[in-house]
Amino acid sequence: MILSTGEEVDLLIRDCAILTLDHAHFITQGAIAVKDKKIIYVGRKDSLPRVKAERAIDAHGKVAMPGMVNCHTHVAMTLFRGLAEDKPLDAWLRKDIWPLEAKLTWEDVYWGALLGCVEMLKTGTTCFADMYFYEDAVARAVEDSGLRAVLAQGIIELKTPALGKETFKQSIDFVQNFHGAAEGRIRTWFGPHAVYSCSLELLREVRRAASEKNVGIHIHLAESSEQAEKLYKKYGVSETCLLEKIGVLGSDVLAAHCIFLSKKDMQLLRKHNVKVGYNPVANAKLGTAVSPIKELMDLGVHVGIGTDGPASNNSLDMFWNMRFAALAQKLRYKDATVMNTRKVVEMATLGGARTLGLENMIGSIEVGKRADIILVDFNKPHLKPFHDVHANLVYSTCGSDVDIVIIDGRILIEKGEVKVLDEAKVMSEAEKRAFRLISK
Amino acid sequence: MILSTGEEVDLLIRDCAILTLDHAHFITQGAIAVKDKKIIYVGRKDSLPRVKAERAIDAHGKVAMPGMVNCHTHVAMTLFRGLAEDKPLDAWLRKDIWPLEAKLTWEDVYWGALLGCVEMLKTGTTCFADMYFYEDAVARAVEDSGLRAVLAQGIIELKTPALGKETFKQSIDFVQNFHGAAEGRIRTWFGPHAVYSCSLELLREVRRAASEKNVGIHIHLAESSEQAEKLYKKYGVSETCLLEKIGVLGSDVLAAHCIFLSKKDMQLLRKHNVKVGYNPVANAKLGTAVSPIKELMDLGVHVGIGTDGPASNNSLDMFWNMRFAALAQKLRYKDATVMNTRKVVEMATLGGARTLGLENMIGSIEVGKRADIILVDFNKPHLKPFHDVHANLVYSTCGSDVDIVIIDGRILIEKGEVKVLDEAKVMSEAEKRAFRLISK
Repeated sequence: MILSTGEEVDLLIRDCAILTLDHAHFITQGAIAVKDKKIIYVGRKDSLPRVKAERAIDAHGKVAMPGMVNCHTHVAMTLFRGLAEDKPLDAWLRKDIWPLEAKLTWEDVYWGALLGCVEMLKTGTTCFADMYFYEDAVARAVEDSGLRAVLAQGIIELKTPALGKETFKQSIDFVQNFHGAAEGRIRTWFGPHAVYSCSLELLREVRRAASEKNVGIHIHLAESSEQAEKLYKKYGVSETCLLEKIGVLGSDVLAAHCIFLSKKDMQLLRKHNVKVGYNPVANAKLGTAVSPIKELMDLGVHVGIGTDGPASNNSLDMFWNMRFAALAQKLRYKDATVMNTRKVVEMATLGGARTLGLENMIGSIEVGKRADIILVDFNKPHLKPFHDVHANLVYSTCGSDVDIVIIDGRILIEKGEVKVLDEAKVMSEAEKRAFRLISK
Repeated sequence: MILSTGEEVDLLIRDCAILTLDHAHFITQGAIAVKDKKIIYVGRKDSLPRVKAERAIDAHGKVAMPGMVNCHTHVAMTLFRGLAEDKPLDAWLRKDIWPLEAKLTWEDVYWGALLGCVEMLKTGTTCFADMYFYEDAVARAVEDSGLRAVLAQGIIELKTPALGKETFKQSIDFVQNFHGAAEGRIRTWFGPHAVYSCSLELLREVRRAASEKNVGIHIHLAESSEQAEKLYKKYGVSETCLLEKIGVLGSDVLAAHCIFLSKKDMQLLRKHNVKVGYNPVANAKLGTAVSPIKELMDLGVHVGIGTDGPASNNSLDMFWNMRFAALAQKLRYKDATVMNTRKVVEMATLGGARTLGLENMIGSIEVGKRADIILVDFNKPHLKPFHDVHANLVYSTCGSDVDIVIIDGRILIEKGEVKVLDEAKVMSEAEKRAFRLISK
């Protein structure tokens, strides 16, 4: 696409610095033009032809970058934010979270998800990967909020074959009904919970269905050392080996966590081009450990950053999660040179897009890609002096510095305010429902 | 003090939730009255007598808490924020930071410190402990910004006795000239850099002077394993043992970092009631390790949280540093129950005050203490639902949620904006000076 003089465009962003995440990488005085949801110009502002813009934004002092991609969450768990603190993973799940989740209704999930969508939008996330119950309610929240998402109805068996069958059936319906929904902003995947909570037969069936329908598989992998040990005792191999053995691994698989991996497991993930969702905050908060992300990336595995659900984080702000993602690696390897700022910005944007198979659509500011762009206001005391754009984004920016959020060319956040939803209503509805759940 | 009906007060904060940090701990519908810089009422709003307030704040939806105490920083290093990323401690200091610091002028330090003061105020820090060159310029920035601080002119020898003598002399002058400055908001301490950068004789002299002048000693301790090993080879004991041997340890000593400690070292710190400054972000960022804070606290050692200088963090936002402080401990001990939310909030406020010997003046919202109070706006999507005040403050709040900051009863930040300084000028002056320094 070449932009011609006099052409009409939908949106023009003038006079911003641009972190493109493609080979151009950083443009100090740039401009971006958007038409029909897509980027049709990105470059120096003085090379931009004179065009007619339906809407123009003067972005002086701001840095444009691709929207953040949160590649693992259970967004409706905003409802439980702060409810079960300072507890280890297994106790947290079994004693606190699962009993609460058993009481959830469609409306609870909708309002919880919508609250999370508002938080994500305001902090610069434009795409997320979710796995939960009532995922159609999450889909509705995605539609209403203008976000982009890869959604999976959770499949779980817990030694109850009927439950496995039922949730698998719901998943198939979900994929059939919602793939391509919200004007194409929703993709649907399968979401088998984990190796320890689904039978091998069920996992095989999920694999067949995913291949047949050409959608991906989002699964928790090697998150708990307890579960990993139990499985090892039962099968004599690691969780990762087991998944390979039954044919589940593939380039369409997004494995969240991947903490307890042997060298062989890492090689298997690489061999099958499995994508990894790194959730450092939740892993630390539940007292687990730091994933060997440096080693995975050295092997060439694609990694994105996830927040995990807001009940074990408790923040969907990807800036803060990106910062922790870098620091946790430096701590794990006791090496300050590990996970440099440029790498971690890429992981939170283009890397995340790759984990979802969306790298041709989003993840960088390039002509032809969807206009999923955020503008970060760098005119703040904590972002001065402006020595290094990557360092500022990783170590000094917080979600509240996000001024404008654009998805598919549509401005959803402006001056930090939500344009498309009644924020006060979302907060009060979600809070009411959360309070009702705990008093039930 | 008992507040009487009809009494005139300087400031009244109405209808807020209050995290007092004293035995009352949490008041859901509270009020605070301030007179002559001090808190004269804190309690339920319906128990407040009718008073005449010169200024009243309606704080519905906000949580009042003591201002944060940052117990270790070199605040003027804002100038170097983002300049030397992804480097290990020793290389970072010797190749990047020290050569830049050699070029610093009084004005550079003043504007760098002022930029840091603005950032601290906006993110809810009301008191900080600093150690640097041209500390009188930092004192000026404290005076101009309205902050409270414990300041130390850095003493460093680096095998050059004349340098040690000169910086020690500057320190004595600084203590004489600035103790009690800024209407009593400034306390001065001695700041010998570290055991490896000062001779034992110099450290002994500093100890004598501190005891004589009744001021504290702020020192880096056990931050670098390399330096610790070198000292061990030279003296046959650890850094901590060495400081004990020469009589430096005492209840007026604030030791920053304390990463490489043996069990015996920890016992020594406890025995002498040495205070510890925990700087988890900087320690992670430089690829070092996590301090054994859980063990120190189990022994009864008083610990506060520091950011360290903004060149190795790169943020002075104590909310983010508090969050990382908790997560880093959970990671170090692989235990989710370690460093619970209540403990970490206390560490960032009252705990910090204790490390500076100011616990009778600040650190909690109690009658008789100075009115150093912040109001956090909880009416935000990322702080909903409001299940748990400590969890929200530690894991979900960021500095930009701070709405009002009060020090000595004076409102310095309102609606998140600085009332006492020209923020734009501070940003541009500091940035200009930073750019000049790197181009020199």
